[in-house]
Amino acid sequence: MLGLMQDWPLTVDKILDHAHSWFPQREVVTRSLEGPITRTTYGAIWGRAKQVTNALRGIGIVLGDRVATLAWNTERHLEAWYGAMSMGAVLHTVNPRLFPEQIAWIINHAEDKVLFFDTTFAPIVEKIAPLLKTVTTYVALTDRFNLPTGAIPNVIAYEDFIAGQSQDAQWGAFEENTACGLCYTSGTTGDPKGVLYSHRSNLLHAMAANSADCFGAGANDVVLPVVPMFHANAWAIAFVAPMCGAKLVMPGARLDGASVYELLESEKVTFTAAVPTVWLMLLNYLRETNSKLTTLKRVAIGGSAVPEAVLRAFEQDYGVEVIHAWGMTEMSPIGTIGKMLPEHYAQDRETQIKTKLKQGRALFTVDMKIVDDEGREKPHDGKAFGRLMVKGPAVARAYFKNAGARNAKGECLEEDGFFDTGDVATLDEIGVMQITDRAKDVIKSGGEWISSIDIENIAVGAEGVANAAVIGVVHPKWDERPLLIIEPKPGAAPTKAQLLAFLEGKIAKWWMPDDVVTVEKIPLGATGKINKLALRETFKDYRLPSTQAAE
Amino acid sequence: MLGLMQDWPLTVDKILDHAHSWFPQREVVTRSLEGPITRTTYGAIWGRAKQVTNALRGIGIVLGDRVATLAWNTERHLEAWYGAMSMGAVLHTVNPRLFPEQIAWIINHAEDKVLFFDTTFAPIVEKIAPLLKTVTTYVALTDRFNLPTGAIPNVIAYEDFIAGQSQDAQWGAFEENTACGLCYTSGTTGDPKGVLYSHRSNLLHAMAANSADCFGAGANDVVLPVVPMFHANAWAIAFVAPMCGAKLVMPGARLDGASVYELLESEKVTFTAAVPTVWLMLLNYLRETNSKLTTLKRVAIGGSAVPEAVLRAFEQDYGVEVIHAWGMTEMSPIGTIGKMLPEHYAQDRETQIKTKLKQGRALFTVDMKIVDDEGREKPHDGKAFGRLMVKGPAVARAYFKNAGARNAKGECLEEDGFFDTGDVATLDEIGVMQITDRAKDVIKSGGEWISSIDIENIAVGAEGVANAAVIGVVHPKWDERPLLIIEPKPGAAPTKAQLLAFLEGKIAKWWMPDDVVTVEKIPLGATGKINKLALRETFKDYRLPSTQAAE
Repeated sequence: MLGLMQDWPLTVDKILDHAHSWFPQREVVTRSLEGPITRTTYGAIWGRAKQVTNALRGIGIVLGDRVATLAWNTERHLEAWYGAMSMGAVLHTVNPRLFPEQIAWIINHAEDKVLFFDTTFAPIVEKIAPLLKTVTTYVALTDRFNLPTGAIPNVIAYEDFIAGQSQDAQWGAFEENTACGLCYTSGTTGDPKGVLYSHRSNLLHAMAANSADCFGAGANDVVLPVVPMFHANAWAIAFVAPMCGAKLVMPGARLDGASVYELLESEKVTFTAAVPTVWLMLLNYLRETNSKLTTLKRVAIGGSAVPEAVLRAFEQDYGVEVIHAWGMTEMSPIGTIGKMLPEHYAQDRETQIKTKLKQGRALFTVDMKIVDDEGREKPHDGKAFGRLMVKGPAVARAYFKNAGARNAKGECLEEDGFFDTGDVATLDEIGVMQITDRAKDVIKSGGEWISSIDIENIAVGAEGVANAAVIGVVHPKWDERPLLIIEPKPGAAPTKAQLLAFLEGKIAKWWMPDDVVTVEKIPLGATGKINKLALRETFKDYRLPSTQAAE
Repeated sequence: MLGLMQDWPLTVDKILDHAHSWFPQREVVTRSLEGPITRTTYGAIWGRAKQVTNALRGIGIVLGDRVATLAWNTERHLEAWYGAMSMGAVLHTVNPRLFPEQIAWIINHAEDKVLFFDTTFAPIVEKIAPLLKTVTTYVALTDRFNLPTGAIPNVIAYEDFIAGQSQDAQWGAFEENTACGLCYTSGTTGDPKGVLYSHRSNLLHAMAANSADCFGAGANDVVLPVVPMFHANAWAIAFVAPMCGAKLVMPGARLDGASVYELLESEKVTFTAAVPTVWLMLLNYLRETNSKLTTLKRVAIGGSAVPEAVLRAFEQDYGVEVIHAWGMTEMSPIGTIGKMLPEHYAQDRETQIKTKLKQGRALFTVDMKIVDDEGREKPHDGKAFGRLMVKGPAVARAYFKNAGARNAKGECLEEDGFFDTGDVATLDEIGVMQITDRAKDVIKSGGEWISSIDIENIAVGAEGVANAAVIGVVHPKWDERPLLIIEPKPGAAPTKAQLLAFLEGKIAKWWMPDDVVTVEKIPLGATGKINKLALRETFKDYRLPSTQAAE
């Protein structure tokens, strides 16, 4: 027997409709690409998003067509976002930080028909335009006076694109599982894979992300998403703010400490979100200028683990609560939140800090477990670690065009329907998750797992060590054993015996590296993380002394 | 093109699963019917709810079967609730405050197969059991030592019913639109009508109800739902608390001021919810005993409009924020919330009080409009009033067994898909809604509407008036004109001239009653509201002087 409630498809046009109906005068403030701070409202954005819809329909865009943006967080990006999504086109946010060749590959793979771009990215667009096979219209997110003059075919200024279009356009009226957004993950290996969000997944995720213990924003908040819309939907904030009626502050292209600080203070921001790098810049600026944060209450930090110094600075020096969040593009993106629990409030401050540095507990709508290689669940004891598996209405089932498929249905799921995050994690007694390693970096020794990151974090503290990496090396008896790779500080030359002695007592006996080697420079990836892939390649023929002994 | 996100049906078993996985040790505290305060956890409740499922399956209950409860808010009621819903049975909460004949009618109409009841209601059950046509099992929510001894057939103590059942039972695995709960509205006319909630509607409504600007509860909250589960799902709190990991405090049968106060303080409650009557009792108790509220932060008040004295007492005398909510059984139930907006914070305190006494603004997922008799939308100016129409995923589309159908599909909706609340309301410039009248009580004069309640509220302040009612009386020229009916204070005899003079200048000229009549006693309904139906019956042949003049 079915219930007798109304059919009200969960489509994101309803979010901007809600803001238009109930918060038409609430401000959206942008640091424009042209320079000045501009001010508009949800009411005005709604009208212009309707114009975008009509303009897109005018050039033949229909349900399911992909529309790309290469843009910072601005009011125009928000209009294009809702204008495209609300008519059932798929808004593809392209990350401008990728190499131009990758951008071209992604746009061709997505078969985008329109590309909205900020003028700061005109040089990229000029470069890739000859490579693009499906884009027929290029819309520069500016007015005709600022239109880039380079060699971009069929380019039109955004203001001309929407000029004269009606503000009356039908939105919604398609089923809620309709594709809504597309975002490519750039893995360390293989081609980028597209995550295809649905209207339903975006709307549900936004409601979950704005629960009291996560963002918890309301109509009295002023929200500054420094995290870009091309970074996994600005962590849902482009949906959350109009949904709850919060004033929205868009930082445009300037994410440096001084610019972010200026907006935080002048617009009286209460809640903001970004990756740790942005906060390091802000905190440096605050210290250099001896400035205070007078209105900010909460800061969400994710993308990579919160550095302890950032956590302490925000909470202890500036009285701002840190919400440590973890997630991934495939999770829309939020999976866990670091809000403290009653159990933690009973702890001393140093233990609380340790807890807050963990990735947090599962958001409602996220099912989560850690498993061994046979898929058996591992205990929640804070020690056992396993592959982190997730499930939920905003977790990917498959990648666009079946990339990375693991079964005949084209899905990227395990047999039990869970998505393998590729991370290895622990869960403690009260459900707090901590990432301990990437699954591909964990060392499997005699059926047990050794965390490479744990050993690295300790080894880097040894005298004379500039950087340290641990990889698994094949072993005839134990499958794999850890190899410690050291980059010495200039002039230093720590010995194997010194390093092993340093580790002694700090890690389990069977975790002790079987060997230590010294390299001139440990290779780093684009984001500053150790490039384990390169190290494994370098040491693919390396034989441990223990291997030689076992043979 | 569809998105590629996971299929994760919105079913309420996932709420208790979430609490079991991530908040297994969080407490649920009950003032038991047997007397003592009992303590359990979400982990334990989950296990016992699984036992309920197995016990129900054991007596042949399957997907779609209705299972009734006649019970207070207790841990056992919560177990029965999730045990029945999670297997796809429909949990029918019966209001024990109805007349026994009405209860029997409702249970027969719902075709309930099982009746869980609290021992305090054993006398009712004894009385109605001979009338019940479909109930085959009676489960007293207690242990065998407290089993009622009266003449109830096939009665079993709850603890015996679930004893020995496995804590392993499949939940969910049905589609999210499956019926989940059933609650009858008792209108002033006609038979009660059943609202049939779905899993989807309950889950979405709970997420919306717990948004930051509505309940905004988190894992550090302690929540006391004084509002009963049989009163429209305890306003979603039976879903909200386990969803967010809040400690839950269940008041059992004792809702008096002293008992509620004891729980508020001893359990350190931070958020509570109930109808105004409960708060009048609590506030009286606080004053009589000169007590303070030391942990309570927020109180949600709904069911009927918040009296000004209650609002002022909570906020000014006790420092507790009042969340004025409006809704109806057909809306799951929350429609609007009275959380202040930035615009209101700029106002003086007396203006804020006036705003807070209004019903509030639309919750996200609720579409709302006011319309005239032709369905044309009325402006948001705080003056124009119209029929209040609502839409949303947790708003009824039809009543059980097509009661009250307005179209061939059995739906209770208007042509545009909106549900007519039966209320007349205004919406102000910033979207705050105020109920001004019941639609059937509004007086339609010359194509314009006159609010009966507005005139009554003023007239009751005239000297010598104990109570005042206004009804529309047929008029040959104006369709209807207002008739003021007065119940004088003992010994007083205000004249028509005095009363009209009193109204002069306080209401629009064309709102002035065409006549005033005096009655000994204005009839009141069960809830203390004026019985307009009875008044209209009494005055059905009444002819206004203006009518006589017009003829």
